[in-house]
Amino acid sequence: MNILEIIAKKRDNKKLSKEEINYFIKEYTNNNITDYQAAALVMAIYINGMDDEETKELTLAMADSGETLDLSVFGENVVDKHSTGGVGDKVSLILLPIIASLGIPVAKMSGRGLGFTGGTIDKLESIKGYHTDIGIDKFIENVKSIGISLIGQTLNLAPADKKIYALRDTISCTESIPLIASSIMSKKIAAGANKIVLDVTCGHGAFMNNIEDARKLAVAMKNIGKLANKETVCVITNMNEPLGYAVGNNLEVIEAVNSLKGNMPEDVEQVILELGAYMIKLADKGDNIEENKEKIKEVISNGKAYDKFLQLIENQGGDTSYIKDTNKFEKAKYILPVKSEKAGYIQDINARRIGEISGLLGAGRMKKEDKIDFSVGIVVEKKVSEYVKQGDVLAYVHANDEKLAQEAISEVLTEYVIESKKVDKPKVILEII
Amino acid sequence: MNILEIIAKKRDNKKLSKEEINYFIKEYTNNNITDYQAAALVMAIYINGMDDEETKELTLAMADSGETLDLSVFGENVVDKHSTGGVGDKVSLILLPIIASLGIPVAKMSGRGLGFTGGTIDKLESIKGYHTDIGIDKFIENVKSIGISLIGQTLNLAPADKKIYALRDTISCTESIPLIASSIMSKKIAAGANKIVLDVTCGHGAFMNNIEDARKLAVAMKNIGKLANKETVCVITNMNEPLGYAVGNNLEVIEAVNSLKGNMPEDVEQVILELGAYMIKLADKGDNIEENKEKIKEVISNGKAYDKFLQLIENQGGDTSYIKDTNKFEKAKYILPVKSEKAGYIQDINARRIGEISGLLGAGRMKKEDKIDFSVGIVVEKKVSEYVKQGDVLAYVHANDEKLAQEAISEVLTEYVIESKKVDKPKVILEII
Repeated sequence: MNILEIIAKKRDNKKLSKEEINYFIKEYTNNNITDYQAAALVMAIYINGMDDEETKELTLAMADSGETLDLSVFGENVVDKHSTGGVGDKVSLILLPIIASLGIPVAKMSGRGLGFTGGTIDKLESIKGYHTDIGIDKFIENVKSIGISLIGQTLNLAPADKKIYALRDTISCTESIPLIASSIMSKKIAAGANKIVLDVTCGHGAFMNNIEDARKLAVAMKNIGKLANKETVCVITNMNEPLGYAVGNNLEVIEAVNSLKGNMPEDVEQVILELGAYMIKLADKGDNIEENKEKIKEVISNGKAYDKFLQLIENQGGDTSYIKDTNKFEKAKYILPVKSEKAGYIQDINARRIGEISGLLGAGRMKKEDKIDFSVGIVVEKKVSEYVKQGDVLAYVHANDEKLAQEAISEVLTEYVIESKKVDKPKVILEII
Repeated sequence: MNILEIIAKKRDNKKLSKEEINYFIKEYTNNNITDYQAAALVMAIYINGMDDEETKELTLAMADSGETLDLSVFGENVVDKHSTGGVGDKVSLILLPIIASLGIPVAKMSGRGLGFTGGTIDKLESIKGYHTDIGIDKFIENVKSIGISLIGQTLNLAPADKKIYALRDTISCTESIPLIASSIMSKKIAAGANKIVLDVTCGHGAFMNNIEDARKLAVAMKNIGKLANKETVCVITNMNEPLGYAVGNNLEVIEAVNSLKGNMPEDVEQVILELGAYMIKLADKGDNIEENKEKIKEVISNGKAYDKFLQLIENQGGDTSYIKDTNKFEKAKYILPVKSEKAGYIQDINARRIGEISGLLGAGRMKKEDKIDFSVGIVVEKKVSEYVKQGDVLAYVHANDEKLAQEAISEVLTEYVIESKKVDKPKVILEII
């Protein structure tokens, strides 16, 4: 077997065997295949595609290319949750304590934000004292003792995926369904998940801009799960406007805490209920989706989910006084309103642009090495379908630099499309696959 | 403009603009575009193709990427001749003195052999004293004084083509029509040709194995020539069996000398007459192809072509006594017959394999750095369609190592397909495009 034959095969739109895919992943990870050979193969995969079996083999080969996390001590139904990325997406912060409070173990490694999307780990680090790098032993011990731990990616999970992901970025091969699907699934599988609930975001603020692409990605990941014996459910959710109101690190934590206290934005609640109900189902704790949603509502209203969140924070060294009184979170120097210049119904708010503007204020990073400013961001006050009068506050810009704040105000304003015609409240849950 | 956009465009099967192609070639030559980015683009070109205009722009951009040779001092009708490669292909050695003896300037840079094909420069160097590296000034001076000079590629012609050619080899992208066509034409154009006659070889011993592919390549090169204002004629010739009888460096020179003395193998003659007639036509020295062929026959029979060859050799330091008496050429230690094991008509002789076996004897190089043994090779005695009895000599192996000689004998034997059914003499000139 050699890489030239493998490249030629995919170039000619033929199916690669398991052995060929394993050879490529192993030798590329070990630097025995050059970047230009990998680039040629990746481009051929981009153009000619891969079928379900090839995609599964690619996923498993990448999952197996580095360290893996063994969560079998928690049984056969360890459920992971993953979002394909969005703006204002604080779902993990709210949902995982809910799930843990229902007696389902949550052992989750989360990522950092890059580009216009935030990352759960960055948000958690905005809580004073919270450690995201406690080591695997302590991580497992925490899950055993309180049923939940959330840490950063301390293991070298799926290094082949890291190499291919970085390469794809430099050769215009990011938007390939089999490559995106295998990238996401390989990391989940390497991180020890047996069952996976995926939030496949769709819209301006997501990598998949339309329902057709989101559906294709969802189907590809579902099929990988099926063939790899990792039951997977995909919930396609709307990511045209930001999810909830807050965009920015500690701003989102505050919204998550309020949500756990029972004050949850309507769109966030829909996503929480849907993803959570399927997590409960996959964990074998309830087959009826509607009943599962009631269980979630119950642990919110009786405070168990909130208590679990406090336990999680305390257990990883976080200062829970911030959670108990979110006014303790550091505030940005400038909190300035974005005021509507006309009256009408809000037709659209481009989530991606809101994410980017928030990033420019300092909430995100353009490069891995960038430092994050936890206090800045944007809090949307009015969402799509709402009516506003001229002068109404559409959003608040939270900034530590006055010039950046002024720029952000005018940019946020242009992202609000306001017209006289009425529009319906957007559907939040688009499809279950 | 940036490389990511260019890659994405070709990835999506869109047409690249002149500016985009120029940008890629310039920045890749200057190492501002990485090999993996170039590999991704080349693979996208391989799979999605390029139209005539893109191929022309790629050709001109590559031709312009390094040094170029200005032959305008010789007028507007400087004709170059090029073969896409074959086995036993001594056409340039015979044809170019013929053309020069007809008063048409011949200023040609030739290549070295690689793989199973020989190179004119290697063959010339088997003549004692002949200098292939006389420098550009002397080269031009020689053409002015005697009408002909043949040298190696001393200029850094089309370095972008060199980089892309080497890259293609490592990523399974050699057999792409627009990439092959632009590679050949860019070197011809950089070498100063205004008109080009191309011998597009077709068969076992050529890069194009079948007439359909040969035709596609010919059409692609003809179109480049048309769009680039470099009139081009392609003659598709049969390269199933070796051309003529001799395969190997000084063995081919001897055959070329004999040909110029009037003793030309029939298939060689057909190729010489056809290519030559079109060179004369493009040089504006005669529109009638049949009359042009007569002119060629005349300079052979009256000795003018042979005299021109002597002049060429003498002018570049070669010892003409070798030409006058070809017995002076160094002979291989072992000259052993390959004898037929059965009676019948020769159906096929695989030229590529004969080239490879000759290479293994030392006549060719596998790597650029390999040294060549000028005296070894294979001389075919019987060609396709001839009848042989058991024990008849099919070919002679010329070798300097007895073990290699014995191996070559048995391998040459297996390349002779002999059966009882009669076959026609193969057509030599397959098509003119």
